[in-house]
Amino acid sequence: MIDDLLDIAKNIYEELKKGGDPVIKFSSRGIFNVEFDEIKGIVKLGKRLSEREFFNAAHVRRFVQVLLVMERVKRLLESGKHASQREVYYQLKHALPFSRINTFQDEPETIKAIEDLERLFMGQRIREEFHITADRRGALYGNMTIVDKSIPGEVAEFNPSTLGRGGWAIPSTVEEIEIRDVDADYILTVESGAMYERLIEEKFPKKQRAILIATQGQASRGIRRLIHRLRYEYKLPVIHFGDGDPWGFYIYFVLKTGSMNLAYLSEKLATPDIRYVGMTMDDIREYDLRRVTEPLKEVDKKRANQLLNYQWIKRFKEWVRQINLMLDWEVRIEQQALANKSLEFVAEKYLPEKIENEKFLP
Amino acid sequence: MIDDLLDIAKNIYEELKKGGDPVIKFSSRGIFNVEFDEIKGIVKLGKRLSEREFFNAAHVRRFVQVLLVMERVKRLLESGKHASQREVYYQLKHALPFSRINTFQDEPETIKAIEDLERLFMGQRIREEFHITADRRGALYGNMTIVDKSIPGEVAEFNPSTLGRGGWAIPSTVEEIEIRDVDADYILTVESGAMYERLIEEKFPKKQRAILIATQGQASRGIRRLIHRLRYEYKLPVIHFGDGDPWGFYIYFVLKTGSMNLAYLSEKLATPDIRYVGMTMDDIREYDLRRVTEPLKEVDKKRANQLLNYQWIKRFKEWVRQINLMLDWEVRIEQQALANKSLEFVAEKYLPEKIENEKFLP
Repeated sequence: MIDDLLDIAKNIYEELKKGGDPVIKFSSRGIFNVEFDEIKGIVKLGKRLSEREFFNAAHVRRFVQVLLVMERVKRLLESGKHASQREVYYQLKHALPFSRINTFQDEPETIKAIEDLERLFMGQRIREEFHITADRRGALYGNMTIVDKSIPGEVAEFNPSTLGRGGWAIPSTVEEIEIRDVDADYILTVESGAMYERLIEEKFPKKQRAILIATQGQASRGIRRLIHRLRYEYKLPVIHFGDGDPWGFYIYFVLKTGSMNLAYLSEKLATPDIRYVGMTMDDIREYDLRRVTEPLKEVDKKRANQLLNYQWIKRFKEWVRQINLMLDWEVRIEQQALANKSLEFVAEKYLPEKIENEKFLP
Repeated sequence: MIDDLLDIAKNIYEELKKGGDPVIKFSSRGIFNVEFDEIKGIVKLGKRLSEREFFNAAHVRRFVQVLLVMERVKRLLESGKHASQREVYYQLKHALPFSRINTFQDEPETIKAIEDLERLFMGQRIREEFHITADRRGALYGNMTIVDKSIPGEVAEFNPSTLGRGGWAIPSTVEEIEIRDVDADYILTVESGAMYERLIEEKFPKKQRAILIATQGQASRGIRRLIHRLRYEYKLPVIHFGDGDPWGFYIYFVLKTGSMNLAYLSEKLATPDIRYVGMTMDDIREYDLRRVTEPLKEVDKKRANQLLNYQWIKRFKEWVRQINLMLDWEVRIEQQALANKSLEFVAEKYLPEKIENEKFLP
């Protein structure tokens, strides 16, 4: 990785030395360059490239910012340390010599430069590989051995199924984590922390041989990367269990196909063959849950209509049908609504029945 | 606990049988009944009581809702199970016989009834003791043994300093958690997940014999209860490390004195002798951080002025001074700004120096 960075830097240096105009090229950002890869099943960036020239008043600021981030990344990799995006911002923020111009005005500007660096590698490298970390969230419970070597000079080894109802707090980066001796048939990702605790209390992971991951709302990058690794490195199928509303559906699609903002990272962060067990609009009829639906608000309807326009959602007729049913009935249904049957219902009937009969949405 | 509930229920039943009008009494809610206890150092409810009469059209709905919650709590305690607030809502939501009136219209109505039950016990019982849980958040890293018996028939035992940079995900309730063999000198609570990971990477907990808790913003009830227990059951001093802005200051005061909304719970959730190590306005001068301050926005200024009006804040002249300096200079300073010195600075110089010399705010 350091060699890759040095190569880029050397090219720029050589170009400058011979009096040329150094240029860096990377995948263009923006909606016009986002496309859906039908074969891989992920949202990704198209082939358009952007260029930044050093001797261009409109480009030089971002050009220099990317170089500053590269220099910082080299030091992080050499020391084995990690830095949060905000730490990178504060580390790099300084006035340029002989001027009062700041290198970085605010944190978003730093994040853009970090994204530029990722896109310079056309999405083949993610910021976590550069030891730059994003916010952490989420918890994991399951029978496996986790070996964390990310703290220089230390090796932590533990089984996250021995940590009670709390579980393992998923860190900001899982790049340096090894996973061994996985003893489970599948991964169940759940949207709410409360449902995660419900399923642990019902001993669902043990009875069903499942690994549980709580995304606690929109999944963090660490969670998305962890699910991707468990799926493709350890060959575990992944099933998602979320709320039956536009927000819950979108949380699923970010796990599945990647997000529009970070489309260039889908190959490392998305899990295109994840499947969706619920909550669905059909569940409302199937399990007689009409009384525990909640009314769809205007903002929910607006969001549902937006989803119908995303290329990577509307290609699934099953999903279009669910969203249209939601708009017709003007209701949403939360995971916890299953508690209306009994606390155990979700763990003893709903999930085992639907999973065994593969009643999934794609 | 079940006996307490049965006593209340029996009194109501006896009163009804003899043709009387059952009444339940509890601490009044609302700002007019919030006071600051100078001796205990906590925000708490005053002595005002509210009454709800069964044969009163304005009272009967809430009266019945509290009874429904009590009945549900009895079942939870008998089964050893726990339910989230939202599960309680969906469990209790049903149309009353011979009517189309719902017992509970929405989740907030259920939470109010749960709070009524807590206030019926004048804050001596918290919902977690009734096995009703709130949202989870936060992580812990430290050398101790945690024994979690909250899952019926299971005992989990582990040391949260062996879980790498992730740490233990703090569950929604810590009532049934035992803590043993604590090998640490103090607890350091930190506002951001990123700073928590920084300090773990720098081996701060081991070098400084500290237990680290990430609140990840405003502390959850589980975190507040855990800190309270570590302070008073295990006699560990608690030090907080947060952002130098009005929001960071308020996160500290919720840990210290309790919050206005849940004033009746301060005796179980607050930690009045917690101390504050930073970030302070004086740090900006002391450590030459002016270049990495951020401008105070209008919304920050408004919040800062609100803090100056809280009785439990304005009694500390040290805090009034900090807030006034912030308003004078119109800047805020984040924890991560210390990275401008070096990544290690916070762990090797800033915190050890301030903690050793007890440079705290009260």
